[in-house]
Amino acid sequence: MAGSSFGRLFRVTTFGESHGRGIGAVIDGCPPGIRLSLEDFVPEMSRRRSSNRQAHTTPRRERDRVDILSGVFEGKTTGTPLALFITNHDVNSRPYEILRHLVRPGHGDYTYFKKYGHFDFRGGGRYSARETAARVAAGVVAHKVIEPLDMKVVAYTIELGGIRAETPELETIRKSPVGCPDPAASKRMLEILSQAAKEGDSLGGIAEIRIRGCPPGLGEPVFDKLDADLAKALFSIGTVKGVEIGAGFEAARLRGSQNNDPLTPEGFRTNHAGGILGGLSNGDDIVIRVAMKPIPSIKIEQETVDREGNPSKIKLTGRHDVCALPRVLPVLEAMVKIVLADHHLRNRAV
Amino acid sequence: MAGSSFGRLFRVTTFGESHGRGIGAVIDGCPPGIRLSLEDFVPEMSRRRSSNRQAHTTPRRERDRVDILSGVFEGKTTGTPLALFITNHDVNSRPYEILRHLVRPGHGDYTYFKKYGHFDFRGGGRYSARETAARVAAGVVAHKVIEPLDMKVVAYTIELGGIRAETPELETIRKSPVGCPDPAASKRMLEILSQAAKEGDSLGGIAEIRIRGCPPGLGEPVFDKLDADLAKALFSIGTVKGVEIGAGFEAARLRGSQNNDPLTPEGFRTNHAGGILGGLSNGDDIVIRVAMKPIPSIKIEQETVDREGNPSKIKLTGRHDVCALPRVLPVLEAMVKIVLADHHLRNRAV
Amino acid sequence: MAGSSFGRLFRVTTFGESHGRGIGAVIDGCPPGIRLSLEDFVPEMSRRRSSNRQAHTTPRRERDRVDILSGVFEGKTTGTPLALFITNHDVNSRPYEILRHLVRPGHGDYTYFKKYGHFDFRGGGRYSARETAARVAAGVVAHKVIEPLDMKVVAYTIELGGIRAETPELETIRKSPVGCPDPAASKRMLEILSQAAKEGDSLGGIAEIRIRGCPPGLGEPVFDKLDADLAKALFSIGTVKGVEIGAGFEAARLRGSQNNDPLTPEGFRTNHAGGILGGLSNGDDIVIRVAMKPIPSIKIEQETVDREGNPSKIKLTGRHDVCALPRVLPVLEAMVKIVLADHHLRNRAV
Amino acid sequence: MAGSSFGRLFRVTTFGESHGRGIGAVIDGCPPGIRLSLEDFVPEMSRRRSSNRQAHTTPRRERDRVDILSGVFEGKTTGTPLALFITNHDVNSRPYEILRHLVRPGHGDYTYFKKYGHFDFRGGGRYSARETAARVAAGVVAHKVIEPLDMKVVAYTIELGGIRAETPELETIRKSPVGCPDPAASKRMLEILSQAAKEGDSLGGIAEIRIRGCPPGLGEPVFDKLDADLAKALFSIGTVKGVEIGAGFEAARLRGSQNNDPLTPEGFRTNHAGGILGGLSNGDDIVIRVAMKPIPSIKIEQETVDREGNPSKIKLTGRHDVCALPRVLPVLEAMVKIVLADHHLRNRAV
Repeated sequence: MAGSSFGRLFRVTTFGESHGRGIGAVIDGCPPGIRLSLEDFVPEMSRRRSSNRQAHTTPRRERDRVDILSGVFEGKTTGTPLALFITNHDVNSRPYEILRHLVRPGHGDYTYFKKYGHFDFRGGGRYSARETAARVAAGVVAHKVIEPLDMKVVAYTIELGGIRAETPELETIRKSPVGCPDPAASKRMLEILSQAAKEGDSLGGIAEIRIRGCPPGLGEPVFDKLDADLAKALFSIGTVKGVEIGAGFEAARLRGSQNNDPLTPEGFRTNHAGGILGGLSNGDDIVIRVAMKPIPSIKIEQETVDREGNPSKIKLTGRHDVCALPRVLPVLEAMVKIVLADHHLRNRAV
Repeated sequence: MAGSSFGRLFRVTTFGESHGRGIGAVIDGCPPGIRLSLEDFVPEMSRRRSSNRQAHTTPRRERDRVDILSGVFEGKTTGTPLALFITNHDVNSRPYEILRHLVRPGHGDYTYFKKYGHFDFRGGGRYSARETAARVAAGVVAHKVIEPLDMKVVAYTIELGGIRAETPELETIRKSPVGCPDPAASKRMLEILSQAAKEGDSLGGIAEIRIRGCPPGLGEPVFDKLDADLAKALFSIGTVKGVEIGAGFEAARLRGSQNNDPLTPEGFRTNHAGGILGGLSNGDDIVIRVAMKPIPSIKIEQETVDREGNPSKIKLTGRHDVCALPRVLPVLEAMVKIVLADHHLRNRAV
Repeated sequence: MAGSSFGRLFRVTTFGESHGRGIGAVIDGCPPGIRLSLEDFVPEMSRRRSSNRQAHTTPRRERDRVDILSGVFEGKTTGTPLALFITNHDVNSRPYEILRHLVRPGHGDYTYFKKYGHFDFRGGGRYSARETAARVAAGVVAHKVIEPLDMKVVAYTIELGGIRAETPELETIRKSPVGCPDPAASKRMLEILSQAAKEGDSLGGIAEIRIRGCPPGLGEPVFDKLDADLAKALFSIGTVKGVEIGAGFEAARLRGSQNNDPLTPEGFRTNHAGGILGGLSNGDDIVIRVAMKPIPSIKIEQETVDREGNPSKIKLTGRHDVCALPRVLPVLEAMVKIVLADHHLRNRAV
Repeated sequence: MAGSSFGRLFRVTTFGESHGRGIGAVIDGCPPGIRLSLEDFVPEMSRRRSSNRQAHTTPRRERDRVDILSGVFEGKTTGTPLALFITNHDVNSRPYEILRHLVRPGHGDYTYFKKYGHFDFRGGGRYSARETAARVAAGVVAHKVIEPLDMKVVAYTIELGGIRAETPELETIRKSPVGCPDPAASKRMLEILSQAAKEGDSLGGIAEIRIRGCPPGLGEPVFDKLDADLAKALFSIGTVKGVEIGAGFEAARLRGSQNNDPLTPEGFRTNHAGGILGGLSNGDDIVIRVAMKPIPSIKIEQETVDREGNPSKIKLTGRHDVCALPRVLPVLEAMVKIVLADHHLRNRAV
């Protein structure tokens, strides 16, 4: 049953498959009068497509040009549905023919087969990371919606393949090929990525997302808490296996007297809450960490079964990222912005 | 804007405040013909109210009798809305009068004040943990909906105040006053709870939830993934600061060759996925861990501000839990069952 | 599947049955800070219960006192869910025992039996007109939400048992026991009602609803047009068999040159559109007519079947209205106000 | 705020403007495994485009080829979102440049301007009848979903320009250029259409929709009644000003003893209910009548205002239908099928 829409007022519906005609998003609920052009999409789409010069990212050359099919007139949004479409180019489905019979460990092949029987298995089809291109495009629109609030949403790599950024300096992120704000750690991450690529293996990592300038009061009691919607948005990204906010799992080891953030006339003295209290933003930075599993597509032989359940072996070829980081960073930012845009509009309706 | 409903087909709307008339839930979408009586609610409501003999849980005596206001006829559900209501008894709002002026650190006081201006601050009002009584009641109904699937949902304490359960034996859970399946750890948890209570401080902890017997194919691509909906459901509980599924944050440190769960004719050889692949259940156990921050209400003096932003001090009195565990366990189970019931019905509609 | 909620931002969920514990509504999305007291509900609830002195309305004495279970603090709404409850008093289910076996023509007995098998058939249960008490209560809240817009919503009888109001003078409505703004027609309507009551038969009628002062721009393209949402709201009332807006069915007989409303600097010269163009309010009066079938409960013997499909006869006893008018008038107004409140909030979110 | 989606489980979202890139629909919730090809869309899209040989229909040649952008793999639906797109060809926006300043009576120009300020006014833009092409395409998919139920949905003209079909013989509909099942009336309708076209004026009409073979139990209490959802679906079509079901407005003049449909072992003896009782289908034919106002675009000079509110005159040129009938017939059928598909899936979830 329908599950491809997200948001209540800023409502994003994505469609499309990895090896079909393309990937798209319809946004219903974008306010009118917002300047929007094709060029607005280029930077984020490029970041997501990103560093195909690096060994660790997918060599497939994705020309991700966003087409605006509706909802913009004379350069501005009209308040009616925005339809965005990204044509799939350079699609070679041959390597995926094997998936007609064999199930890839760590992918949705098995579960889609069990649920649907019939599905587009080529490159993951609907559950391919390619679907996130539509999210990034929608995130560009969400960014425009919240622009007047002057928030800053930034995602960066704080751990990759077990290597941790020690002293994050956010202004260095864009210089790092892995989106890591610690130059020394960034260098070691690149090395471990190359090593894993050589071995045909893959790596996981942890991203941190920081929202600066979020006004207090975003979020709704009791189910649509801001943290609940953020968690759903982030867990809806394929590789995510964990989400924590503020002190997160570490908060479980603190005492109340340590974890509570004292209030002063100048604001909160600490930020264990991660910027959210009672499900509503408190005006402080919102800080989220997201755990990414290693990319399941590896070039090492794995034990598996075929569609009839018989034992088999599988060794993948083709082009695959070694780690979801850094390409997932603009996707994380996009999903966060979609949540913020939605709750911003919800707050206006109160 | 409206945020008090959860679920698409099995749709739960809660209402009520801690120190108002009571707490309730309306469930729209419960199938007809399910046997349901007042007695069905007693065990779970008691678990949530729980061990008021223990030092660490709130001494307020909550007689949480669930009233069925509609939707049941001759002992069976009718398919029309079930309205459940739990009257608030033994309510003393006097200790909360201070909250008219002062903001409690770690609570929603500050954010509700910023968002609404006018709100029922007594005992947290709408953002009180008391609201979860309605969730537990709704969870009892959800349990009935998924009963034919023969799933088993169990939540237990695996860490409390820094003490970790080493060798969980699930059958011992109900014997442990803190819901911990490791008897030795359970004993030490009780000790640390008593110690913190004496000091007027509070503790955090980590719960694990295990779903056994979940059929493959529950969940929807791409936003309403089973893990995404579970994460939202769990993050909507006030004290939750982190959620991870399967290997979770640890998966970020594994390689693909380690993290991928090999498939065999007998099933998955490992379960790093935590029972969910591509957003759909894979038939294996679903394993979730949830981090709970320490209860913010402590009897130690804290720095805070009043509603005008002037510096002040606050030292809470009254009855408060020392740790969300174990009372939150039936709440966790309830939210998980609500998600499962919803996706079960969604799967029937396909 | 769930169908007991209405509205997107001002979201009303009703519950309850005719002969159960009571009838209620939860409103999620009511803005905070609105003054609301028990007394606010009295006039509309009385209008709906109405003239039990008149022969034509149901003699059952309904003490419809609205209880506020949540969402109000110190006399004002909090922005969290309002739960309203109306206890059923004076309930005698004995006369309905026959419905365990026999199907009443014109009622939902047959279809509920086919759909649910198991349902509360006493007095119509969930499909009883009694459910509309919850709508009227919710309408009182909706009225408060749109009060600042200074709209006036009034419903009145323009036809009853074939007698038509010729020269409506809206200020006379409340003086007419049948809510008819034509005193002469009102008198004849009362006569025909008495006559039908004596014969054990029932009558249909037509109501007109007029919304004055609606600002332009309420409504959303393309499915949630204001007229579309009004039509759904009105057709969701049990006895409604037709809805027309502005010239309505008569517009089908006009030419474009006659039906188009010319625009002048002072406004529209005519109002065939009935105040809605392109699905959005145009600032003119919104005019709606609603056809009500005769009440199906009659004391004349009718041909029917039992639950096994065997031929039978049925002759109803008990207390029944002769015509849905005038008691349905506050229900019509309530549903219209709920639609207006919802679209008002939606417009604020744009 | 978002209003371009319809349906709960079979969820249709349309996008696009009359003179933009094209018109499209995303359907989320279509079950997997349904055969669907481009050819499936041709007959209905042609019916809607229809008889451009006839004087009364718009001479613009619309090549309405439906493109499937996603959701179909190897000729069958996958259960993931179907995206359909119809490119706008042969678009000349020149004649609409006048609408930058002037408001057309009877159209949404005035209300869109008031609501949005900025909107695509060319040819009505989003509120153009062109948007219904997306609905017809979605209706083709809905048809496939309900095909196993073996229902028959047919819409036909029963009145046009005041001329009424007296003796409908449904099998003759497709032979009539105006979709009228009474050959004699059909002939006179054509004549009056030609006459109106010559005069530059337009005509209204009434369509009847008949659903045969609908199983009992479709529809949901209390707001999502089948008739309520049908009414909303039909009123969401631009030219619709009235909807009645079964005896409709005539029921208001009947007595209960006349209007109630007696039940017999063979079924209902009459069908004043129009196939719906208590909001649920009763197994009998569902009969709906829909009033269409005359097309507002006429070539006769009309009084109007400009965007600043100054008095002006307008005389439209360009290509316009004289009557919404018969081209609206496939749109009516499509909307009805979308409602039926949605409620069919909802019934499966119970």
